[in-house]
Amino acid sequence: MGSIFGRYLRAATFGESHGKAVGVVVEGLPAGLAVSAEMIQRDLDRRRPGQSVFTSARREADQVEILSGVGADGLSLGTPIALLVRNQDARSKDYGELARLFRPGHADFTYFHKYGVPPQPGGGRASGRETVGRVAAGALARALLAQEGVGIQAYTVQVGGMRAQACDLAFAQGDPLRCPDPAVAEAMADEVRQALAAGDSVGGVVEVLITGAPAGLGDPVADKLDALLAGAMLGIGGVKGLEVGDGFAVAARRGSANNDQISPQGFLSNHAGGILGGISTGQDIVLRLAVKPTPSIAQPQQTIDLDGQARTIQIKGRHDPCLCPRIAPVAEAMAALVLADAWLAQRAARNIR
Amino acid sequence: MGSIFGRYLRAATFGESHGKAVGVVVEGLPAGLAVSAEMIQRDLDRRRPGQSVFTSARREADQVEILSGVGADGLSLGTPIALLVRNQDARSKDYGELARLFRPGHADFTYFHKYGVPPQPGGGRASGRETVGRVAAGALARALLAQEGVGIQAYTVQVGGMRAQACDLAFAQGDPLRCPDPAVAEAMADEVRQALAAGDSVGGVVEVLITGAPAGLGDPVADKLDALLAGAMLGIGGVKGLEVGDGFAVAARRGSANNDQISPQGFLSNHAGGILGGISTGQDIVLRLAVKPTPSIAQPQQTIDLDGQARTIQIKGRHDPCLCPRIAPVAEAMAALVLADAWLAQRAARNIR
Amino acid sequence: MGSIFGRYLRAATFGESHGKAVGVVVEGLPAGLAVSAEMIQRDLDRRRPGQSVFTSARREADQVEILSGVGADGLSLGTPIALLVRNQDARSKDYGELARLFRPGHADFTYFHKYGVPPQPGGGRASGRETVGRVAAGALARALLAQEGVGIQAYTVQVGGMRAQACDLAFAQGDPLRCPDPAVAEAMADEVRQALAAGDSVGGVVEVLITGAPAGLGDPVADKLDALLAGAMLGIGGVKGLEVGDGFAVAARRGSANNDQISPQGFLSNHAGGILGGISTGQDIVLRLAVKPTPSIAQPQQTIDLDGQARTIQIKGRHDPCLCPRIAPVAEAMAALVLADAWLAQRAARNIR
Amino acid sequence: MGSIFGRYLRAATFGESHGKAVGVVVEGLPAGLAVSAEMIQRDLDRRRPGQSVFTSARREADQVEILSGVGADGLSLGTPIALLVRNQDARSKDYGELARLFRPGHADFTYFHKYGVPPQPGGGRASGRETVGRVAAGALARALLAQEGVGIQAYTVQVGGMRAQACDLAFAQGDPLRCPDPAVAEAMADEVRQALAAGDSVGGVVEVLITGAPAGLGDPVADKLDALLAGAMLGIGGVKGLEVGDGFAVAARRGSANNDQISPQGFLSNHAGGILGGISTGQDIVLRLAVKPTPSIAQPQQTIDLDGQARTIQIKGRHDPCLCPRIAPVAEAMAALVLADAWLAQRAARNIR
Repeated sequence: MGSIFGRYLRAATFGESHGKAVGVVVEGLPAGLAVSAEMIQRDLDRRRPGQSVFTSARREADQVEILSGVGADGLSLGTPIALLVRNQDARSKDYGELARLFRPGHADFTYFHKYGVPPQPGGGRASGRETVGRVAAGALARALLAQEGVGIQAYTVQVGGMRAQACDLAFAQGDPLRCPDPAVAEAMADEVRQALAAGDSVGGVVEVLITGAPAGLGDPVADKLDALLAGAMLGIGGVKGLEVGDGFAVAARRGSANNDQISPQGFLSNHAGGILGGISTGQDIVLRLAVKPTPSIAQPQQTIDLDGQARTIQIKGRHDPCLCPRIAPVAEAMAALVLADAWLAQRAARNIR
Repeated sequence: MGSIFGRYLRAATFGESHGKAVGVVVEGLPAGLAVSAEMIQRDLDRRRPGQSVFTSARREADQVEILSGVGADGLSLGTPIALLVRNQDARSKDYGELARLFRPGHADFTYFHKYGVPPQPGGGRASGRETVGRVAAGALARALLAQEGVGIQAYTVQVGGMRAQACDLAFAQGDPLRCPDPAVAEAMADEVRQALAAGDSVGGVVEVLITGAPAGLGDPVADKLDALLAGAMLGIGGVKGLEVGDGFAVAARRGSANNDQISPQGFLSNHAGGILGGISTGQDIVLRLAVKPTPSIAQPQQTIDLDGQARTIQIKGRHDPCLCPRIAPVAEAMAALVLADAWLAQRAARNIR
Repeated sequence: MGSIFGRYLRAATFGESHGKAVGVVVEGLPAGLAVSAEMIQRDLDRRRPGQSVFTSARREADQVEILSGVGADGLSLGTPIALLVRNQDARSKDYGELARLFRPGHADFTYFHKYGVPPQPGGGRASGRETVGRVAAGALARALLAQEGVGIQAYTVQVGGMRAQACDLAFAQGDPLRCPDPAVAEAMADEVRQALAAGDSVGGVVEVLITGAPAGLGDPVADKLDALLAGAMLGIGGVKGLEVGDGFAVAARRGSANNDQISPQGFLSNHAGGILGGISTGQDIVLRLAVKPTPSIAQPQQTIDLDGQARTIQIKGRHDPCLCPRIAPVAEAMAALVLADAWLAQRAARNIR
Repeated sequence: MGSIFGRYLRAATFGESHGKAVGVVVEGLPAGLAVSAEMIQRDLDRRRPGQSVFTSARREADQVEILSGVGADGLSLGTPIALLVRNQDARSKDYGELARLFRPGHADFTYFHKYGVPPQPGGGRASGRETVGRVAAGALARALLAQEGVGIQAYTVQVGGMRAQACDLAFAQGDPLRCPDPAVAEAMADEVRQALAAGDSVGGVVEVLITGAPAGLGDPVADKLDALLAGAMLGIGGVKGLEVGDGFAVAARRGSANNDQISPQGFLSNHAGGILGGISTGQDIVLRLAVKPTPSIAQPQQTIDLDGQARTIQIKGRHDPCLCPRIAPVAEAMAALVLADAWLAQRAARNIR
């Protein structure tokens, strides 16, 4: 269980880090939407490793193949769209020695207790490589949302001790860490370089901005929009916290300062982050994700092996020293899947468009 | 859509604030479990309003009636258990004048845009009163978990600017704000009294502690345990943020300081909050919820009416000046539903017990 | 598990035969639909026992109470609608002696093996009384469909050896057995009377006619309209077979005789029963249900008790000698739930209405 | 929507007749089960076209590739298993001229009204080729069931006017039509040959026998075992009717003759076909499927084109003159998916094995 996202737009991902392939089957996408490999590739390229010193050197072309669901005219048929990406640079020799050890901060230990299966090369299903399927599916959701004028962008607002103060979305697109503040980008990069030099890694915060979502998305009680988004974001490996709108800052605040008052021209503020009672207000939806430092570090760590014996582990190979720039496109994809799903739900519930 | 929680253990809640009743239908609870109205009542009494100066003065006996699913011997039959609580003290006169105004910070505006329905008395389905069904269902989940040695407690670790430094769970049970720190409880209470005196409200942070959960609960990718818990917690009205384990503190941290190393005696720390790769580690599971200040305040606020005209609103009646002590039992119930669901999932997947 | 029908329009039924109440929570019904207790009562009255010599003498007022989901203006709010019917004439003394015996043809034996629970009074959850919830939910689905011009009627086309040759729908409405053929109605009634006189019961066939359904309802592969209807109909107690359109008659036929050819004026025939490839054609949808003779009979039968000892059982009390007239309104309700669900699915998938 | 089967064991199929590939993603299969391409290939080979004069001449190697979910040791990992089969002999030239015509008896018309998409080569998603994914998934379900001692076999008990009188399961395995009666096999074959010679096709009945299923599988009310099986079987293209146990024969019967009485040695008969109250009795489960004659016939037929103009259509190319031998392995696969799903559900609900 547990590999199918969504209710109306459903995405069933598959694949392990060092298996033959990763991918996804997406169902529920309406017919008649223009779908091309290029469009999906664009998003996959944004999550691809090996793009800078800040990300893992694993080389993967990550060429997507559309197996089904798109007609000869390039339009979606309304049937399931299966998307396949072959694994190439598996390099399982890097992981061979780890097959009997539980890597601290990784899922080896919990998968072993869940499935009775020993640590798999590259983390198996728990690898970040699994997110290829999510990003590919997200590209389809994004295309649907684009028609409705909904845009989604994620960027890195904190790395270690450095926080962005400004938000230049165009700058973030080009920055290797996806930092939106030109004045802080270099200092953020230094945080990463220093961690790397110390055989260590560093955490951060990723912000997700959703623009153009109409009021009325999300369902009360069990399928609130913020609840669905929270589930989607906490389902990304390495995410340990989530804020909607002002998030934890509301704890220290009074109601008179936190309520978003309303004028005939619209809300006078957006402390709520675009969601009230689990339903979108029509304002920007703002989320922030706490991202833990990459657990794979070069420093020696205490652990145990499959027999429960004490061992020291030192993880070789190249790993992302900071997960934030890799998580940003995944967070965009997950947000797109949730929004598109909510949009279809609302179309079923009311007569929109 | 959106009123059914869970996959294996499912809870379908119903009811509006000022309707005839609130309640829930729970399905998937195994047969043979002792279920009594008293057991459910105990949890309902903990969420009931009117218990102290810190909570709404609405008077509701909140007597639960078991309509189905329990045999003459007091054991669950394996069939759906329907639980009903009649509304008594609806007092819709308090809300009558509000029927054409969108209350700031409330869901009136978004429900109107979702459903085309004007503001309902007491917030209708968006009222905290809906959580009666969740708490009743949670009592059943809790009974199942208790058999497996799993315990759940939620308490208030912050109100406004005051934070608890110690964690005395027994003290929290008796404290009106559910503060777990005897040294801070009075200062927290002052925060609430001052807000109330100012016709205002105040936010806070609720922590949820789950003990005794075995390793292996949760499913990778789409149904991770932390993702399901996040969805459950963000689905509680007024919650704007969530942390698992160390939460946002990980952002500023290095991997060497954040990884929980492992010894033959177990993990050496629990920064992860008991979940790795979306699956429980067997350690304590720790969550924290950012709770916004109650939106219903006595101070005048700007808003609009159904025609889009500017209006000033001043909310009368008695409201909880701080949501934390009311949210704690709801958070416990939601955590219980998620854990019991994950436990049944794991029993299907493997041969546990 | 297993008490929630549907995907977009979901109905969670609850209740046992001799428990406090039966009912249903319906979610997914769009807001703004006129919903009244009278409208639901009308359908409940049609399934009520004690209406003629052909049905059980159990007396139940079956008064429905709407607990939630409907506003003061009588319109659906878009939130869950909970419907409650109290049990009155439980008469568990009739069943007391049966508590240790497995009644042949009943679910006592299988429930015991599934749940480890001994036979419950009146069959517990397996009683036909559970269908009160389905019929109440069906009334809501029917109201939604009526807006779209979809009508549903079920009637008895066979009882024992007697088959209806004509189809007068208005006549069927008034006939105690719901026979649509005035020329055959009395002979059908004789079949029932003779079975009853012999301390026995008799089977039959119920036909369901759905008119006005637009082309395009149903989803390919896993959620075909005929598959969903088949699941809904086989889920009615006592139904052992289902035909769509010409059903089993197609087995002996050639393709040239079975294909429904198409002209500019529409299909030239309807052997398919209104469904092709799992999707509605826009023609009438026709189903037939094989209904087994009531298992509760006055004649002595061989069985075993909870200890596996051989016993003779003789079932007292009054039971429906023929299930067909009781099943007809349930089949209508189930068909309405499936059609309304498919209609919402199609509204999500395309821009209908 | 509509391409994901199951609740606990879920199978998401994808693929169109003339697209790049067909396949399936299966999730919920427990870890530790031996899974090999050979095992899946065995079932795929049984559904493959081109095996005799009675089936379509389309040549497809139908080589399955396991993309994920199986470890280096050949055991399932507990994660999704993706199975891929490339399409080879698409021959879309055969269908080119049909792209503007609705073939009678096919889904072209209904897909057009559902999706707004013109007829696809080979029927697109509505093609029998889609069942490759179901059969591949079924092979996994079958492996799980085999561990529990559950066996499933489907065979052809009627073709046109010829009915099998005996049931020799081993003979059926080797017979090209899967006829289980050696005395009737040749006459059945003649029915097919005669239809073929006339440029026509012929219908039939397929029986499915499930042995070794324990008592207690299936859930009451909404997920009854017979309801799930009925949905699964009616979801197979060309199936227009379903019987459980004695099926439509019960309509003409009295209760005293239809009830399966019980002795200390077990049930004295099996009219019910192994299911009571929607739950398995532990006896053989018996289903029968009415299979329509193949709609693709060489004779000229009336139809319309995309513009609604009257046209005559004559379908060239080679098609199965009788669907029964092709449907048998698909019915086995669908039955296996339902039974395995119900088995996992019961393991979650109770402590079996």
